[in-house]
Amino acid sequence: MLATVLHGPGDVRYESVPDPQILKPTDAIIKLSASCVCGSDLWPYRGLQPMDGPAHMGHEYCGVVVEVGGAVKTVRPGQFVVGSFCLSDNTCPHCRFGFPSSCEQREFMTGAQAPYARVPLADGTLVATAEIPPDDLIPSLLAASDVLGTGWYAADAACVRPGATVAVVGDGAVGLMGVLAAKQMGAERIIIMSRHKTRQDLALFYGATDIVAERGDAGVARIRDLTKGVGADAVLECVGAQESMRQAIGCARPGAMIGYVGVPHGVQLDGQALFFSQTGMMGGPAPVRRFLPHLLDLVLQRKIDPGKVFDLHLPIADVAEGYRAMDDRRAIKTLLLV
Amino acid sequence: MLATVLHGPGDVRYESVPDPQILKPTDAIIKLSASCVCGSDLWPYRGLQPMDGPAHMGHEYCGVVVEVGGAVKTVRPGQFVVGSFCLSDNTCPHCRFGFPSSCEQREFMTGAQAPYARVPLADGTLVATAEIPPDDLIPSLLAASDVLGTGWYAADAACVRPGATVAVVGDGAVGLMGVLAAKQMGAERIIIMSRHKTRQDLALFYGATDIVAERGDAGVARIRDLTKGVGADAVLECVGAQESMRQAIGCARPGAMIGYVGVPHGVQLDGQALFFSQTGMMGGPAPVRRFLPHLLDLVLQRKIDPGKVFDLHLPIADVAEGYRAMDDRRAIKTLLLV
Repeated sequence: MLATVLHGPGDVRYESVPDPQILKPTDAIIKLSASCVCGSDLWPYRGLQPMDGPAHMGHEYCGVVVEVGGAVKTVRPGQFVVGSFCLSDNTCPHCRFGFPSSCEQREFMTGAQAPYARVPLADGTLVATAEIPPDDLIPSLLAASDVLGTGWYAADAACVRPGATVAVVGDGAVGLMGVLAAKQMGAERIIIMSRHKTRQDLALFYGATDIVAERGDAGVARIRDLTKGVGADAVLECVGAQESMRQAIGCARPGAMIGYVGVPHGVQLDGQALFFSQTGMMGGPAPVRRFLPHLLDLVLQRKIDPGKVFDLHLPIADVAEGYRAMDDRRAIKTLLLV
Repeated sequence: MLATVLHGPGDVRYESVPDPQILKPTDAIIKLSASCVCGSDLWPYRGLQPMDGPAHMGHEYCGVVVEVGGAVKTVRPGQFVVGSFCLSDNTCPHCRFGFPSSCEQREFMTGAQAPYARVPLADGTLVATAEIPPDDLIPSLLAASDVLGTGWYAADAACVRPGATVAVVGDGAVGLMGVLAAKQMGAERIIIMSRHKTRQDLALFYGATDIVAERGDAGVARIRDLTKGVGADAVLECVGAQESMRQAIGCARPGAMIGYVGVPHGVQLDGQALFFSQTGMMGGPAPVRRFLPHLLDLVLQRKIDPGKVFDLHLPIADVAEGYRAMDDRRAIKTLLLV
């Protein structure tokens, strides 16, 4: 088949690769209904993350099961499934503690920017829907695989409560999904730091009540001002840079939790400053599998519309343009039609 | 009156100072029932914390109100009271959010290693008991002022749940109170890192189920071994050093919270390592006032006996020896009889 391979910085090719096959009895092969490009794919694309040779890209996926290994019990060919970008057995102590993203058998999904993909640990990873969903819900179901689940985790880790004032640092796809999640969790006020019109508009669509266009200290001051000097009850850090983390801490009230889901690059935290700011931190790879059943319900009942975060739809053969558009910030997130 | 003044590293004097007076209408003057030396007093005593001239020492206190300012409404002369080392108004947004230790009007108590002390923000800070308590409960009530409240916060911030496996890093007075708190919160297994016999014994008295005498990587490996490789559900970091924080993170399972209450000295946290360990952090100055009513109830009903943490009782005139004994680790915590 043809699939997406990153050969080096800026060099994305849609090219011939071997068809995926069952390698272990716990594997499944799925036919993707759609795929997409993740913000985290841009790290190696930009040469900011070391690569170990050409890489089969793509870790977000939903689709129909076409084949399962001999040990797979909970999904069968013909079912529509969604899985997390973190593959997990869903039975180990870490999974049972609610953190399948730290599963003892954890692997990270790869090769999903393709018409077909192999999903290891299928029983633990995949959640099947009762019926084949209508086509118009595919983008939203695909979003659940990573970007929605990650934004949801940011809000969960930040302990967003009904009535809360929430600050979201980062207006990428994950930050926007964080807004959606905070709204669903009953936040009364959702302040997002954003200076891009299309992202601001989408944030308002998802439930943001305030937009802060200022950055750095000015942004923190603005959020402090909006909260009468108190700071936010919960903060979602959806970038992963030193400066964004500093902003997150700066706008958190004492006792607030920061849910941080942007993979930190070069972030150092001073213990004493964190202590006296009395800011809590919880983050890490999102345990999306924990949230998937609930998120799929919300999508299937049309209570949320995370799929709108895909503001560029391209045939998968044009995947290189999908990367370029995100790299240039012309697109928030690219959906690939397979 | 005579009171405790630290003139410089190692130079503690019990000497004549002016009697405390009402300076603001929100002040109270109390006659202390007992006082004590805190582990944090050793930082300036050891010359590890800059001093701005001679300092009136002591921030832990309980006793009988002898005078109140004109604005004080909730306590009156003759009442027995306990207050937190953090003075707070108990009405500001931070107090109402459960973090009086970050009160908008926060001050830190001083001058309590003395027969009398001024307590600012008396209404917000002091909790009165219904009756004058019996003398034998004074040590336990005094402990509630800081060391018990701080250990309790460590367990609260670490989200200790019934049935949990808890690891406690630090066998000082706060760590021991953390053991007591974890036990009260229903922890099933409480592992403390300790290599001092008297502290081990006291930890067992307070509910520890396992003692780990190894330190550093060996200590972490031992805790991992005791938890079948999983790690602890909740970790209490009660030291504040880089090495103790590293141990705390090392023995936490993914998704666990670390409640850290030792003031960090030179602690740096790597954002990416924290992210992938999926460890949560919550700490800061303990919001003792939040817990005081509950802690006083537990003491008055004789359900807990935190006063045993004072393993050296001295007349306050011998306060210098009280500091020396703690500095030499001959005493866990010194109670001063006033």
